[in-house]
Amino acid sequence: MAVTIEFDGERVLAKEITSEQALERGFFGKKTGKNVLELMPVEALYLMDVRNASCTHNGKQVSFNRLASKLQGKKFMARYFCYRDWRDRGLVARPMDEAEGNYGRSPVVKYPSKHFDCPRVKARGLFLYDDLMSVIDDEEKGLALYERDWFGQYGTYKARKHGKFNKLDAYETLFLMRHGGYVLNIKEARLVKEATQRRQDFNALYDVYEDWRLRGFVLKTGFKFGTHFRLYFPGASPTLENEEWMHSKHVIHVFPRDSKMLISEWARAIRVAHGVKKTFILAIPGEKKETAAELDFLLYHRKHGAIENPREDKPKFVMLALSEEEEIGGQELAQALRRAKEVGLELILSICDRETSITHYRVKRVELPGSKYEYYEIEWTQP
Amino acid sequence: MAVTIEFDGERVLAKEITSEQALERGFFGKKTGKNVLELMPVEALYLMDVRNASCTHNGKQVSFNRLASKLQGKKFMARYFCYRDWRDRGLVARPMDEAEGNYGRSPVVKYPSKHFDCPRVKARGLFLYDDLMSVIDDEEKGLALYERDWFGQYGTYKARKHGKFNKLDAYETLFLMRHGGYVLNIKEARLVKEATQRRQDFNALYDVYEDWRLRGFVLKTGFKFGTHFRLYFPGASPTLENEEWMHSKHVIHVFPRDSKMLISEWARAIRVAHGVKKTFILAIPGEKKETAAELDFLLYHRKHGAIENPREDKPKFVMLALSEEEEIGGQELAQALRRAKEVGLELILSICDRETSITHYRVKRVELPGSKYEYYEIEWTQP
Repeated sequence: MAVTIEFDGERVLAKEITSEQALERGFFGKKTGKNVLELMPVEALYLMDVRNASCTHNGKQVSFNRLASKLQGKKFMARYFCYRDWRDRGLVARPMDEAEGNYGRSPVVKYPSKHFDCPRVKARGLFLYDDLMSVIDDEEKGLALYERDWFGQYGTYKARKHGKFNKLDAYETLFLMRHGGYVLNIKEARLVKEATQRRQDFNALYDVYEDWRLRGFVLKTGFKFGTHFRLYFPGASPTLENEEWMHSKHVIHVFPRDSKMLISEWARAIRVAHGVKKTFILAIPGEKKETAAELDFLLYHRKHGAIENPREDKPKFVMLALSEEEEIGGQELAQALRRAKEVGLELILSICDRETSITHYRVKRVELPGSKYEYYEIEWTQP
Repeated sequence: MAVTIEFDGERVLAKEITSEQALERGFFGKKTGKNVLELMPVEALYLMDVRNASCTHNGKQVSFNRLASKLQGKKFMARYFCYRDWRDRGLVARPMDEAEGNYGRSPVVKYPSKHFDCPRVKARGLFLYDDLMSVIDDEEKGLALYERDWFGQYGTYKARKHGKFNKLDAYETLFLMRHGGYVLNIKEARLVKEATQRRQDFNALYDVYEDWRLRGFVLKTGFKFGTHFRLYFPGASPTLENEEWMHSKHVIHVFPRDSKMLISEWARAIRVAHGVKKTFILAIPGEKKETAAELDFLLYHRKHGAIENPREDKPKFVMLALSEEEEIGGQELAQALRRAKEVGLELILSICDRETSITHYRVKRVELPGSKYEYYEIEWTQP
């Protein structure tokens, strides 16, 4: 049966007794008096949109658009459609201000870590400015560097015996200059300057490269997978094992703290990784800063054969609702992730596209021992 | 047998008789005198890298790096590795200056076109500023607009009977303001201003949206496929046919003429489309401008059971060699595509990643009758 709600000029209330009771049973609204339930704006829109609720103001019928125009605020429809999607799955979403303490449901994925002993580079390299790449043409030393720690590309990709030289990209070159005494026709500062002119985020990418390399991981270009790096766990080798090429299972995408990115571009990187069945790791390098984080809803999920609800259960996730054409900053995202950690819940990023269809991503914190940066596994999910 | 080449301080030559003859048979170099062959820098590097050639200068051995440092220029290694990849496939690549006239091998894909009769919008809409979206809450008129021409999203994505309102994105909203008399709580100029503040390329995207819409195509968000729009051919309908959702087979990505993009980001968009088996269309809207185009190589391909060669055949493609970390501008790419058209060859974009592995893309011109913009189908290929 359709419920009746009332707009008092500021808030939307359910006062009519059967409506109020039905809504409370359905986990809508917050009791603010005897038989009075105050609804979040998204709840009011939801009831009108899909539950056929009628809304009045001073006794007169109010249309959806009239109510929406009175209540609208920041990413209003994106929040509404993300809320609706959760509700349409038969699940409960509640306002963030109901969060209490730390729920202890924030997952952490632990990664291994190994001390990395950087080899000394005994051959002189040639840096090619326009290619941001260096070449070692000493065949023996170039091959050793490639085979021992997978620095550069000796010969040809997947065919190291075809060709005789080792080619190192700008991250590998700089790393070996700093940690392996690699000498070339360019100084460190100049290389950084040249690379930064080409891509502003060079330093952020290098910081992430170095952070994982120093912990024994191998990072190579993620070009084929649409990301900055692909990642191999400590012990990985470029030589064929049983005639099989070693496949990476993780990719890393770097999101500098001080840059902004359209959600649609951001999601594209995750989609490629998902399509090739890799775990997507988001890296947010740089100094942590305290800023306000705005999360949208506390989410209850499922339990054996039933749904979680606010009367009996703890929430499981917090939702950050975003829209396709919105920009998000690295710092803003980092802050939302830390706020989720504070309340001890897993973050779900819900993205509303231009067609009001929602895509959800689960975000798990990564623990990389010794690192001062923040890393997160992000996974497309259907709740 | 390994050949011997000579560096004279500027050019690389093959003078030694057996070397010169072997190279000429292999379609390397250009005859510049009796028994003298001049090599392109990439040819010289190739012979040293994978054919074990020895190079001398004033009678002394010259190393790969020494020669490279003398010859280096714009995207030197990227050009070299792209050249090598083509040669490693057993195919022939020749310098661009050998191109003569129009080879008549530039493919064009013809698209259909239909006059579009825009419906009049008789309901008033509400524009939500922060969401760049408008809502029509007149159920009947909203539904008609959705069902007739697939404007907006009525109800819920893939479930139009769930929910009662029609939601239109900024492109649809503006199109209906301009062509369907759609009236809302915002004027056209203000909408454009708001949208452009959010995303700089809004006008470019809208131009492309309008161009195809006016020719009877339906464009909806390409968010799920990592692109700006997905495309349906004239006659497409949002209502389920035989209980089946209609699938798009094409996606459109807009590359404004005056913006620049990292090749890695550009390639990412194509990868997503390829992963979901859609045809990727690149749109370059805006006024055509004449600038210089630098293409890299004339490419010969295969013919029944053999390879094409410069003595007997016409070239088939032109190659533009790029590197992963290079930026390309919309105008620059458009110009390369037009230069390919002038010589009557199909363009192959070859991208060298940081590991010197090459990815090739074929580019075909799209003919959309009546359009003043440029569109291209881009497809990942293994030559």
